[in-house]
Amino acid sequence: MKITKALITAAAPNQRTLPLQTLVDRTGVPRTALAIIVEEALAAGIEKIGVIVQPGDQDAFAAAAGGHAARLEFLEQREARGFGHAVWCGREFVGNEPFLLLVGDHVYVSSIEAGCARQLVAVASREACAVSAVQATHESKLPYFGAVGGRRVPGQAGLYEVAEVLEKPTPTEAEQRLIVPGLRAGRYLCFFGMHVLTPGVVGLLTAGLAAAPEGKGYHLSTALAELVRRERYLAFEVAGSRYDIGGKYGLLTGQLALALSGSDREEVLGTLVDLLAQRAR
Amino acid sequence: MKITKALITAAAPNQRTLPLQTLVDRTGVPRTALAIIVEEALAAGIEKIGVIVQPGDQDAFAAAAGGHAARLEFLEQREARGFGHAVWCGREFVGNEPFLLLVGDHVYVSSIEAGCARQLVAVASREACAVSAVQATHESKLPYFGAVGGRRVPGQAGLYEVAEVLEKPTPTEAEQRLIVPGLRAGRYLCFFGMHVLTPGVVGLLTAGLAAAPEGKGYHLSTALAELVRRERYLAFEVAGSRYDIGGKYGLLTGQLALALSGSDREEVLGTLVDLLAQRAR
Repeated sequence: MKITKALITAAAPNQRTLPLQTLVDRTGVPRTALAIIVEEALAAGIEKIGVIVQPGDQDAFAAAAGGHAARLEFLEQREARGFGHAVWCGREFVGNEPFLLLVGDHVYVSSIEAGCARQLVAVASREACAVSAVQATHESKLPYFGAVGGRRVPGQAGLYEVAEVLEKPTPTEAEQRLIVPGLRAGRYLCFFGMHVLTPGVVGLLTAGLAAAPEGKGYHLSTALAELVRRERYLAFEVAGSRYDIGGKYGLLTGQLALALSGSDREEVLGTLVDLLAQRAR
Repeated sequence: MKITKALITAAAPNQRTLPLQTLVDRTGVPRTALAIIVEEALAAGIEKIGVIVQPGDQDAFAAAAGGHAARLEFLEQREARGFGHAVWCGREFVGNEPFLLLVGDHVYVSSIEAGCARQLVAVASREACAVSAVQATHESKLPYFGAVGGRRVPGQAGLYEVAEVLEKPTPTEAEQRLIVPGLRAGRYLCFFGMHVLTPGVVGLLTAGLAAAPEGKGYHLSTALAELVRRERYLAFEVAGSRYDIGGKYGLLTGQLALALSGSDREEVLGTLVDLLAQRAR
């Protein structure tokens, strides 16, 4: 399965300006969060990227994409109907092809040579099915994520056959339905904010949105829960971390994660030590 | 001497968007850098603030000032003629009164209860003359700052009578002209990016700009060097640090300094430890 298209969602009311923020990337170059995420996709072999934006944000985003604007196509989400609806707004762009899905308010930091998206796309290409990137996450963080249950694919490190999908489950729900043999106690496979999806998912979104009450939000997890019954659907633990830059110290944490894993690590560690010493004086 | 007006400069081509960046302040509340600096001034007893901007930036700055927009008056700098010229663009706003001068791309973090501006304004009010905030700075950083030489005012901790002002001196110049008895070797009194200035300074700027070659920049330090011969002019070591948020990791460092000296210190230290542990794993 060849994956050449990506969608990046950036239309949520409280998150639409985050991709325009400037961060210093791992190579020490200041770029917008959008440019960093676009490069994450390009490094995974993606050729064309659809960016889901609020109407009117196109120009600011095109400027923020730096040299990559020609790779982008902007797709409008005209109503705030949730993440599933945002993805559905890219249906004509992706057409009848599988696609990589990234979220515009995340910074992804791989802990190995290959980027997070590249790791995921490699697995999805090989397995020829939908694959969600996941991360073993402590149960205290369940209120922030969608999570999956399932069982390990034998002989494939970090790969799981998904049997259940729940959006922001309670610890009780997670314990009853999302236990994954082999994970440490109190840990669940939570979404990493990065998926490879198939045209089948778009079909489920179309049906789900048509059946949802008028004006109500619709979450991607709802369609993925249904996908389990229709197609082979895997989860893959990528080697890396993701940082949601939308929280209070999100930009600070994302920037620190990039800097501490990049070429300016020594310099930034030095700054940290200086700051801590100053305060202790 | 009563000081009720302040100028904030924010018109330099590479720095005009910095005051619009969002930072989490020391109390844990996300605010723009402009709002944080405006509050620094208000806490020093300032009542009206003139903000020097590039033409067209008024609306964005008014929005970024949050609840304080009514305290602000916008003054345009129409040519890029340097910091001295930027201050001079506020001459009608300050009129015949002394004023506090702050720079819009700095974050000031006091190490005591009173803010940095409040410390400076208290000294200037009492001494009834122009006072520049300074910080003892290692000679390796001389290329970034204006610096002063002089002698201690007896019996007044951290207060100096200024005898010389040099803009970005070489180490040799500094050694010959800016030695201050009592400072550690290799340290000089560099500007902190915060001054209380008198109408006399505005007069010197007017004369200096009129005499400067057409279209050339004009630095505040040039006028301050002349001020030494006209008025009593002091330098004061404030208890605190200033962070220029315009550099590559400027926003990161400024944000860390605020967070590590504020109410969210524990939380941010925890994030740091997590990030460092993750990388070590």
